[in-house]
Parts: sequence; C-alpha cells; structure tokens
Amino acid sequence: MASKQMVHMNQGQGETSYAHNSSFQSAEQNRMKPLIDAAVVELCSNTTTMSHGKMVIADLGCSCGPNAVALVSIALEATRSHFLRLRQPHPEVCVLLNDLPYNDFNTVVKSLVAVRQIGEPLVVTGIVPGSFYERLFPSGSVHLFCSSNSLHWLSKAPEDLRINQIPAYDIDENVRRERLPVVAGAYARQFRKDFTLFLQLRGQELVPEGRMVVSLPGRRSDEPVTESSLIWGTAAQILGAMASEGVIDKERLDSLYIPVHGPSDEELREIIQEEGSFSISEMRVHDPISGMDRALLTPNRMVNSLRAAFEPIIVQHFGSPGEIMDEFVRTGEEHLSLQRRSQVKHARNPRVMLVVSLTKA
Amino acid sequence: MASKQMVHMNQGQGETSYAHNSSFQSAEQNRMKPLIDAAVVELCSNTTTMSHGKMVIADLGCSCGPNAVALVSIALEATRSHFLRLRQPHPEVCVLLNDLPYNDFNTVVKSLVAVRQIGEPLVVTGIVPGSFYERLFPSGSVHLFCSSNSLHWLSKAPEDLRINQIPAYDIDENVRRERLPVVAGAYARQFRKDFTLFLQLRGQELVPEGRMVVSLPGRRSDEPVTESSLIWGTAAQILGAMASEGVIDKERLDSLYIPVHGPSDEELREIIQEEGSFSISEMRVHDPISGMDRALLTPNRMVNSLRAAFEPIIVQHFGSPGEIMDEFVRTGEEHLSLQRRSQVKHARNPRVMLVVSLTKA
Repeated sequence: MASKQMVHMNQGQGETSYAHNSSFQSAEQNRMKPLIDAAVVELCSNTTTMSHGKMVIADLGCSCGPNAVALVSIALEATRSHFLRLRQPHPEVCVLLNDLPYNDFNTVVKSLVAVRQIGEPLVVTGIVPGSFYERLFPSGSVHLFCSSNSLHWLSKAPEDLRINQIPAYDIDENVRRERLPVVAGAYARQFRKDFTLFLQLRGQELVPEGRMVVSLPGRRSDEPVTESSLIWGTAAQILGAMASEGVIDKERLDSLYIPVHGPSDEELREIIQEEGSFSISEMRVHDPISGMDRALLTPNRMVNSLRAAFEPIIVQHFGSPGEIMDEFVRTGEEHLSLQRRSQVKHARNPRVMLVVSLTKA
Repeated sequence: MASKQMVHMNQGQGETSYAHNSSFQSAEQNRMKPLIDAAVVELCSNTTTMSHGKMVIADLGCSCGPNAVALVSIALEATRSHFLRLRQPHPEVCVLLNDLPYNDFNTVVKSLVAVRQIGEPLVVTGIVPGSFYERLFPSGSVHLFCSSNSLHWLSKAPEDLRINQIPAYDIDENVRRERLPVVAGAYARQFRKDFTLFLQLRGQELVPEGRMVVSLPGRRSDEPVTESSLIWGTAAQILGAMASEGVIDKERLDSLYIPVHGPSDEELREIIQEEGSFSISEMRVHDPISGMDRALLTPNRMVNSLRAAFEPIIVQHFGSPGEIMDEFVRTGEEHLSLQRRSQVKHARNPRVMLVVSLTKA
C-alpha cells in the first residue's frame, strides 16, 4: 500500500537537511495552535473520553528535525494548562510520533527525550513507523491526531497517469497546457482515494468523540487549477529546465510522478462528508506566507525547501546523486528569480494552507 | 535516573556491530521460547485480560540487529497459534520495542516493518525510547513484557564505589582479590535498588494478571563470587592487561565502572519476593553455552562479542577511539587463548543464564 518511492525528507542535521529547511512548516504549525488548543479543551472536558485518566496524542508524518515534536508539544501544553486551571489531577499523557520507516528516527528520538519531563503529568513517548495509509494504532486507542504538511503526500503516483504513460510534466508548453486537466484530475482522484482511506483508518483508531486537527497545502476552490497551483509544479518546472538544458534525461523526466496533491477546500470538505466518519468542527483557509517577512523568502531558501522535501525522490528517479541536486539548486534559483521579477508585486498566492479540525462522528 | 554512560550496543550493520556479534544472545532467546509460549497461552485464556480484544507485547532493551524482534516474534506467533487452534477471532496485537535513546533505532524500524504483515491478526508496532528504570508505558496498558540479556545493565555505576573512589578493577592481583567482596557487594546493592525499581514500574504498566518473561546473565547461588563470575570481569581483565602494557592509562582504568551486574538465582528470587508486585511462575538456571558447538566459541568471537557490548563505554571513558579497540581485540584474543589452555576441559561455566517467568500479583 505504501508508496515504493522514497517519500521521506532529507535526513540528518546538515545544511541540506529537512531539519534546517523547514521554518515555513514551523510557522504553519503555530497557526494550528488555536484549533489544537480548542480540541484539547473539548476532549479534556468530556468525561466519557477521559474516564480512564489517559490521553493519547499522535502526530502523523512527524518527519525529523525540531518540527517533529511541535504539534504534540502544543497539545501537551494545552492539556497541562487545562488541568492546572481546573486544579484537577493531570491524566497520563502518551505522545506518539509517526512517519514512514525511511524517516530519520534516530534524530526524532533525541527530540522526544526533551518532551518527556519529570513531574506532572506523566508523559510516555513512542514512535510508530509506517504509512498512514495503513492501520498504525490499536482500535479506539487515540484521543487526538495531529498532522501538519504531510497529508498531501499520496500513497503512490496517480494510477491513471502511470498506467497510460501520460507524463505529469511535458517539456512542450502547449502539450503541457492542454493536458493539465487530465493530469490534475488524475492527481485529484488518487488523493480522494487515499484521503478516504486515511479517514476510515483514523476513525477506527480514535476513541469515541476523538479529535483530529490536520493542515495541508492546497488551493482555494474559487481559483482555477494552474500549473503553479500544483504542489509539485515548481519542482517540475525546475527539472523541466534541466531537461531542456540536457542536464537530465528528457525521457526519464516523462516517467517522474511526484506523489503529492494539494486539494481545494471544497474538495476536502466533500471527501470528509462523503466518507462519513467525521464531522467538520472548523475549516480555515489561509495564505501560508501572509504575516511572513517576504524578504526572507529568497529564491535560495525556497529552492532549498524544495530540495529538502523532494531530493530523495529526484535522486532515486534519476539515479545520479550529488551533482543533480547542485544543478537543481542552481537552476531553481535562476528560475525563481526570473519568476519573481515577472510577477506582479503581492499577487495572490496560488497556493494556500487548509487547516481542518474534525470530530469523530 | 538513566545512566550517563553510553550504554548501547555497537551500532549499524558492520563487522564490529552488535547485529553481527550477537548469535549467543539469539540462542538465549530461543531458550526463552517455552516460557513465553506458556505465558501467552495463559494470557489468551484469561477472559478478563483479553476482554478488549487487544494484546500489547513489549520487549525491554531490544537493542538492534536481527535479535531486536526475536522475542516479540515468538510471542506474536504463540498468540497466532493459540487463536487458530481455538478457531476464535484473533485479537489486535500491538508490538512495542524499547531501548535507550542512543540505540540505533533506524535499524530497528527496518526489522519492525517485517513483523507487521497484512492479514490476521492486525499487528501494529512501535518504538518506546527510554530507560527501563523510568516509566515507559501508560498504566495498565501492557499484557506481556519480555527482556533478554538487558536487565544486567544497571542504571548507573555502583554509588559506593564511585563515591569512595574504590576501583572496580585493580591491576595489583592481591589488592583486587582482597577487595572482591567489597566490589561485588556494591554491584549487588546497586542491582537490588535498580531491579526493585524496575519491578515497581513494570507492575504499574501491566494489566491485571499481566506477565513478564525475562532472561539475564548471572551465577549459581551455590558457587562463590569469583573475578570471572562477574559479568564485566573478562573485559576488565583485558583492560588491565592493556594498562600493564602501558597502552591505556592506569589511573583512568581505576575510575572505570562498567555498569552491569549478574545476580545469583537466590538474589533474584529474594528481590522479586521482597518487592511484591509479582509472583514467580517459573525460574530456570542454565549454562548459556550448553548445547552450543564449543569449537565456535573462539577467542576471536568471544572478544568481538565483548567489543560489541562494551565499546561505547570503553571509548567514552578512555577518549581515544579507533586504536584502543583494535588493541582491546588483540589483547583479548591473547588473554582468552591463554585462559582456554590453562582451563580444565569442560570446567563448569562460572556464569549462567537466569530465566524467570512472572505473573503480576
């Protein structure tokens, strides 16, 4: 079920690591705080849910680096404050982090140790390796699921495209433009299938009235699908430029499908309602770079973020590590600088972040 | 609470790794099989324990390499067979592996993936990093604890020795012999303290009537304590020879305390009875090398086993990686070859393995 592609972030703690290139993801996690806080307060106030004096909090797709424990730390702090405010004894809290088996868990374990602290409440921690498109936790065992910037990763590349050998990105601009609806449609269908399964599985694993707060990149429903609203669009554009320059093989590029999809808010709402395990408590749509210092969003930083996320897939596909990624960064910086100059200042960002807070129906 | 010494096995998969030097430990795990099988059958037949259709199995001190999943695999297979025999639906099984945060968990995760298989029963897996001298799991959540060859690791070096600066191993043979009761006594007291705490903590984490099957190296109660019945004895002898030859600093050796203790069977029984959380269902004492091909127990293999277990501690203490361990292997082989020639053939092994099966009282 899990993707055969190497979908994990760049490992370790070096300059090109995900750990050093994920400040954007960190800002996003902070934006989830009010929704996590509200979900925790509701959970803690529910006498049925809390009848066993235990609270199990799990992050799905934790990745590695400092962000790995950010969401569970927010939830842990909210739990602490709630019981402190009520002067009631704290429940035991169990904090679990999930990611694919290729993730750098040795780094994650070191962050987890910091989360466990002596004193109230008793916090026990664990790691649950595996795809979130499979069962990961015992039935009815989790109170709160969180996930930030992970659910856009599909279980695999869109089947229709792969089977029919339709390239996701064609170097010819006209072919690409004409084919956009077919490509975007195939990605949307794969996402629908995957996200439906995800909801079913998490529904089984949550306690009755359990909660889930997730955030993922997507687009506004009232904006049309364009090449640059696709999550993998920019990376594909850079690789396209590299293929045009003969740095990578054109035919190899034709068979590359980066398995990510950002749904529209309407698309997300529809899938959740159709699947039926959850009711939507709140949904927010926001510009991920609003409030950020745009001067910091340099082409260099942006392309390094793309590198941290997609390097394992790119290197696995083109099979020539080292040089290819240096070239990716060089071409990427050029491409993003050009794009920036040609854009109207402060144009509406084609990509947004969707945050949704769900309650098990 | 956890030891500040680097108590983890040699990492990775190379020639000096624990993964490649743990066949002895593997034989020991197989010897635990009948006791684990019996404990699982009793647990599965207990309608109170199994009322939620879930079974949580945890290994404490899993280390890395192929042995990491051996005990939980035995327990999983026993559970499968039991319900298959009765033609009853399988419970969900949750398999958890614990070790200290410095353990090589990236290797463990790869072994865990193999344990999870599609089909009946549903198996979910996780890693719980931390010292087993701290709380690791939620209260009343675990059905079966297993542990092989880990509980001889103390939480720290014996306090009395460290505070009073009494060397555990003195190069002078007469001093060493005279001081043996003091040194052995200090190790025994630290073990009593640690193992009592261990029993208390696991008692809290087990479900009512939960089970624990553990195996650890020790000695027969009817044999006196000698230098070579101490678990760290051989490693200390090798380091002593290295200090005599001037390869390592004599004074540094004086402050080295390898934090392991092998209790006698009586010592173990007494601690368990005094602590009171458990009743002993069965205790076995056996020669760890009985049934093994003695020809395979070459000095080279034996010293490589010691290296895989103690290298992190030795290197951390003497602070000169690389050369020191090559010298350790060279001196060790010489020492063990000499020892072997001087020994009466098939002399009684001063060290035994203790296996104990416990039921939560």
